[in-house]
Amino acid sequence: MQAQIVTVGNELLLGRTIDSNAAWLAQRLDDRGFEVVRKTTVGDRTDLIVHAIQQALEESSVLIVTGGLGPTHDDRTRDAIADVFMAELHVDPELEASLAAMYERRGRRFTDERRTMALVPDGFEWLSNPIGSAPGLLKKVRQTHPKCLLALPGVPYEMRAIFEAHVEYAFDHLPQTGSAYRTFRTAGITENRLQEMLSSVIDALTDTVDVAFLPDPRDGVAVRVSSRAETDAGARALLEDLAIAVESAIGEYVYGGEDDRLEAVIGSMLTERGLTLSMAESCTGGLIGDRLTDVPGSSEYFKGGVVTYGNLSKMDLLGVDRDTLRKHGAVSGEVAEQMAAGCRDLLKTDMGLSVTGIAGPTGGTPEKPVGTVWIGLADVEKVVALKLQLTENRRLNKELAGMQALNLVRKRLKKLELTGQNS
Amino acid sequence: MQAQIVTVGNELLLGRTIDSNAAWLAQRLDDRGFEVVRKTTVGDRTDLIVHAIQQALEESSVLIVTGGLGPTHDDRTRDAIADVFMAELHVDPELEASLAAMYERRGRRFTDERRTMALVPDGFEWLSNPIGSAPGLLKKVRQTHPKCLLALPGVPYEMRAIFEAHVEYAFDHLPQTGSAYRTFRTAGITENRLQEMLSSVIDALTDTVDVAFLPDPRDGVAVRVSSRAETDAGARALLEDLAIAVESAIGEYVYGGEDDRLEAVIGSMLTERGLTLSMAESCTGGLIGDRLTDVPGSSEYFKGGVVTYGNLSKMDLLGVDRDTLRKHGAVSGEVAEQMAAGCRDLLKTDMGLSVTGIAGPTGGTPEKPVGTVWIGLADVEKVVALKLQLTENRRLNKELAGMQALNLVRKRLKKLELTGQNS
Repeated sequence: MQAQIVTVGNELLLGRTIDSNAAWLAQRLDDRGFEVVRKTTVGDRTDLIVHAIQQALEESSVLIVTGGLGPTHDDRTRDAIADVFMAELHVDPELEASLAAMYERRGRRFTDERRTMALVPDGFEWLSNPIGSAPGLLKKVRQTHPKCLLALPGVPYEMRAIFEAHVEYAFDHLPQTGSAYRTFRTAGITENRLQEMLSSVIDALTDTVDVAFLPDPRDGVAVRVSSRAETDAGARALLEDLAIAVESAIGEYVYGGEDDRLEAVIGSMLTERGLTLSMAESCTGGLIGDRLTDVPGSSEYFKGGVVTYGNLSKMDLLGVDRDTLRKHGAVSGEVAEQMAAGCRDLLKTDMGLSVTGIAGPTGGTPEKPVGTVWIGLADVEKVVALKLQLTENRRLNKELAGMQALNLVRKRLKKLELTGQNS
Repeated sequence: MQAQIVTVGNELLLGRTIDSNAAWLAQRLDDRGFEVVRKTTVGDRTDLIVHAIQQALEESSVLIVTGGLGPTHDDRTRDAIADVFMAELHVDPELEASLAAMYERRGRRFTDERRTMALVPDGFEWLSNPIGSAPGLLKKVRQTHPKCLLALPGVPYEMRAIFEAHVEYAFDHLPQTGSAYRTFRTAGITENRLQEMLSSVIDALTDTVDVAFLPDPRDGVAVRVSSRAETDAGARALLEDLAIAVESAIGEYVYGGEDDRLEAVIGSMLTERGLTLSMAESCTGGLIGDRLTDVPGSSEYFKGGVVTYGNLSKMDLLGVDRDTLRKHGAVSGEVAEQMAAGCRDLLKTDMGLSVTGIAGPTGGTPEKPVGTVWIGLADVEKVVALKLQLTENRRLNKELAGMQALNLVRKRLKKLELTGQNS
């Protein structure tokens, strides 16, 4: 069955706000065997929302709308839905009572404006919001062509909580389709190279199986294989051979599956081996530390580090040798190695990771153009350095360097396991 | 005139990829007086692209399509456009020669696959790509209802370069509308509070002027005022009073305009005053250093710092007092102040900035729940600490703490200017 997503909000059209709701919902719908064919964003205007809902419902059986269900004058989705279905809006007494109780618990007034959230279009059900105020709205069409319209608030945590609490019920009248998928997250390899390595797999694809490449400078390229059949079991059977073929072709670059993050994968590997890590960042400025500390509990293995944005701090804090700096320059394998060893000593950790490079847009030379980056990694056994030649874009260079640095740690940890040097 | 944006790519529907193209284009179109009414994302399937283009062209006069113009089998936009206009595709000899020359310069083969980028639908013009391979495609309809279809590659830097190089030409047949806008970027204040402060301005809005609130955890809430009239001069006149009213109401929270970033604003202020900055990050893990070093040339004033993700490194590297740690805990104003002073000493800078807090999801106590964060700032004159009570979300807490910390530096630098203490 085909599904569509409509997200509502001026801030999504014009702002820097990232429409994470649409991506999250698209993955959940895809996982359930729906084919997401389109997502649409419109501003906070009733006529635009009405039009988007009408078009989507004409074309697809499942429509999820997010945003515009709150209490302010900008929230127009409730009115738009009533328009589309030519339905009256009535206050639902049970919903009104639960909203009033929630505001009282929080010590805030249940104003007339907030009371508008108790309005439900005739023919719709409301879905309780486990963590916030605005409820979801649901219409199940059970005729010859079953359909489902689900409207959710735009606040991401509330949207997800309502979806997860009620999704089984919301879709239970729809014909079941079987689907299966698997994601291989890779680092340190380009989309083009992966496509080449998988060319025979891609050439053999049929209508019921698919391979998608989803590149991201931070997380690397995800390879997502998926299948559809009448039942989930049938889809899983279709997927199996495909997944094996993909894994055998690109396995060495794979660091994890669907929701895995490189920083969390490294965290687990460090924890398993009882090892600690510190870092010395120059051109990445703290990005790697930021990523590592996104993992809850990372303080157990990540002890911090230094950001050395100048030669002085490289020498003073990390003990990088003045002659080495003079002879090879701050962006060199020699300095990367000394930085890695230096932060390992300073923070008294098992491993020390360093990055030094020319992020750009200026500072490049013919020998060391913008995008030249060295990564260093020191552990109890040895110190290594890896050279990268990245792009001309400063932010992109920082993100790619961060990914490659974390991937170097991962590869080293893998080897430490294999050779049993983690004792 | 109404405008729409269609972005093409499976990775935009399903992946973690952020659709930055649509937001960038929406702002540019809005700046030129077009009303962006919708953006649509479809996967890499010809029928879906065809349908999205047809619908958008029926409804609006200006349509920009991004993505799907590259050389691989996933790139279907060229074919879809040919379908919509029932146009043949022909190789353009001049375009073909320029592509061949570009690949030769880069030392890469001009394969048959890459040659498909020289195909142009009859009735379309191609627009040169200043920094990449895939050209833009343009159709100007000059009849009673002038229209414009502009197709651009999906790679953000190429998309932007082609748009900026050719936009004047692409739109020169469209009737001119006047517009004006101004953005006030704020930090350290919520959207709700701003709305309250601007309630009398909002109540007095007419059809031709608007105020939008665009919140972002990293950059704060942007307040964007805009106006439309027959001419730009007319729109500017409409905007003037509105902008003055907004500025007088919320001016103290404003750190910059349209494209300003907090880290760059601070960078300029430090440079003007000849001051340097270092940082000591605990719960933010490097996020602030990452932001500061996103600014080209930041090495002139940002000297780096330390990420102290444990008490040991707080004491060893920053000289935080053991008794203070024991008595007040690592998340306290006292420790934040000692961290700020400590990194200022260690890195020999004029100012030292620190953050220590409980990012979550665990580690909270009744006295110091998750989201408790202390920021410290030390300079030649004094050391101050600021307490924040943030959310239960780890990533959100890191981003909000980073913004508040940078804003504290900004406010302090502003005072240093006013009282002439920068000598």
